[in-house]
Amino acid sequence: MYTLLLNSDDVHENANMGDLVPAIEEAFAAFERGDAQMPPKSYVDLPQYNGDFRSMPAYMDAGDWDAAGIKWVNVHPDNGDKFDLPTVMGTMVYSSPETAFPLAIMDGTELTMKRTGAAAAVATDHLAVEDATSLGIVGAGVQSYTQLEAISTVRDIEEVVVSDLDEERVARFLDAFEDEFDVRAGSVEEAAACDVLSTVTPVESPIVPRDAVGEHTHINAMGADAEGKHELADEVLLDSKLVIDDHEQTTHSGEINVPYGEGTLTDEDIYGAIGEIVVREKAGRTAEDGITVFDSTGLAIQDVAAAHVVYEHADENDNGYEFDLLGLAGQGRSER
Amino acid sequence: MYTLLLNSDDVHENANMGDLVPAIEEAFAAFERGDAQMPPKSYVDLPQYNGDFRSMPAYMDAGDWDAAGIKWVNVHPDNGDKFDLPTVMGTMVYSSPETAFPLAIMDGTELTMKRTGAAAAVATDHLAVEDATSLGIVGAGVQSYTQLEAISTVRDIEEVVVSDLDEERVARFLDAFEDEFDVRAGSVEEAAACDVLSTVTPVESPIVPRDAVGEHTHINAMGADAEGKHELADEVLLDSKLVIDDHEQTTHSGEINVPYGEGTLTDEDIYGAIGEIVVREKAGRTAEDGITVFDSTGLAIQDVAAAHVVYEHADENDNGYEFDLLGLAGQGRSER
Repeated sequence: MYTLLLNSDDVHENANMGDLVPAIEEAFAAFERGDAQMPPKSYVDLPQYNGDFRSMPAYMDAGDWDAAGIKWVNVHPDNGDKFDLPTVMGTMVYSSPETAFPLAIMDGTELTMKRTGAAAAVATDHLAVEDATSLGIVGAGVQSYTQLEAISTVRDIEEVVVSDLDEERVARFLDAFEDEFDVRAGSVEEAAACDVLSTVTPVESPIVPRDAVGEHTHINAMGADAEGKHELADEVLLDSKLVIDDHEQTTHSGEINVPYGEGTLTDEDIYGAIGEIVVREKAGRTAEDGITVFDSTGLAIQDVAAAHVVYEHADENDNGYEFDLLGLAGQGRSER
Repeated sequence: MYTLLLNSDDVHENANMGDLVPAIEEAFAAFERGDAQMPPKSYVDLPQYNGDFRSMPAYMDAGDWDAAGIKWVNVHPDNGDKFDLPTVMGTMVYSSPETAFPLAIMDGTELTMKRTGAAAAVATDHLAVEDATSLGIVGAGVQSYTQLEAISTVRDIEEVVVSDLDEERVARFLDAFEDEFDVRAGSVEEAAACDVLSTVTPVESPIVPRDAVGEHTHINAMGADAEGKHELADEVLLDSKLVIDDHEQTTHSGEINVPYGEGTLTDEDIYGAIGEIVVREKAGRTAEDGITVFDSTGLAIQDVAAAHVVYEHADENDNGYEFDLLGLAGQGRSER
């Protein structure tokens, strides 16, 4: 048996959103049903390098398929200036749950962007108005692309408003999508007035004010990933139907961590988890709902679900590079 | 920057025991000094497949060098019969602590054998008699080879007695080493009478009786890696100068876990940790000592230290396969 090596391009090409969004939905459902294992993230803190590592092991069982693996990912904010490297890099080991053979090793950075976009799409599918056609995106960095890629598979998006102070980033985004969508640069207010809004910034002071948000807008709050970060004014959260992915992660490092820590927002203000909606234990958008918010922190089960989709697609299409990592080339009976 | 891929042969060839044993000694020292980070192992249990995964992230700083990474390893006892695959397989991601770039991905199975042998050698160096020339090995499985490879770098081993009920395994072992050593098959008693004894079996009922052990024998008890396993009679442990690697791991899954759980052996009977001996906080063998025992469970810092040695050696010698996993081939400034 060989281990399939998939670089960033391979991950990009094989993370078909049409398969990935349902797989991420299955991951949320498995988590809700208790058919998933996700030990707490382990941190290795390296203050001497102003960085840290996180290990994210997980297993999930969707019924028809299951998936296991681990993502090893870091946050080193000085990397850009000092080493011309990204702040965040990830490596994903995707393993057969049945034998533990490492079926694939893939770029975890690209994988994270794809599964994060897919998570927003799952939430949008359950929480946005059915006839949503406009998408606002605040923050035109690397995470913005997969928001549009994924959300446009669940709603018929025609108009896109992208908002970022960095004009170059906006230009790159427009360039990437202008053939496919009616896409233009705009203010945060214009983005927030769309049917769907995705925020993908690392800000510590909210940049989306309450009065800018459309009456029935669904917001994917994707940016906050550490204590102290939040993108939406407290009033937006308090006036919305608020959906989270995981209570522990979101109260520590998600969009709501600041008002939750201050007591401005409490468990009473949280409608439920995306998993509860996906398994139909709680309703998604109803006729009475105004603003809805999905506070996404990103779960390890999303990574293994996404890795499953990428591996299966790459394997079928003979993509990637087969490597005899464990010296077992002549061994191993196929499980399929 | 490229990620160096090192398969099992590459790991074997680049894990030079002359460098590896001192590196493992540095790992024990760093752990003792508090210059290491080793979050608890995370387990993903899959009873439906009779298996589990363990994630072992770690960082260590030896002063002149430091190392970070994660080993993702499993135990699936049915693999051999059902799938013609090993019970245990490991994948190691070795990362730069400074940037977190994945410098290498390597076979973690071979790496584990090498670092386990090296740990026994470190203990042997501090605890065996200076003029030790004979080594007994009980269990001729995959772990037995690196015991001899490593221990022969710290003592002038001439005579080797290997004991295993499986004659084929014994024959393979003799075949591998007969040119280099005076090696022969023998009973457990003959092996236990040597100056140094390494036990590398998965037994749950002790196989080394008290009266077989030589008066000044040093024993490396390497086999126990789960609750219920032990290789040495309680009397051997109680009559010895007993050294452990990590208190939490060994009382749960190391050689002493059974008598410790029963209360037959208590903290009073433990002399100290190998790290304390390595940093000269406690003495190794003294003129008064009779039997000494090293109870090894295997620490994640050993894996990152071993990965450091393998990577540096492979990089210098242009071994392995360079792969642009993260799509950063044109990027990144060397840290060296």
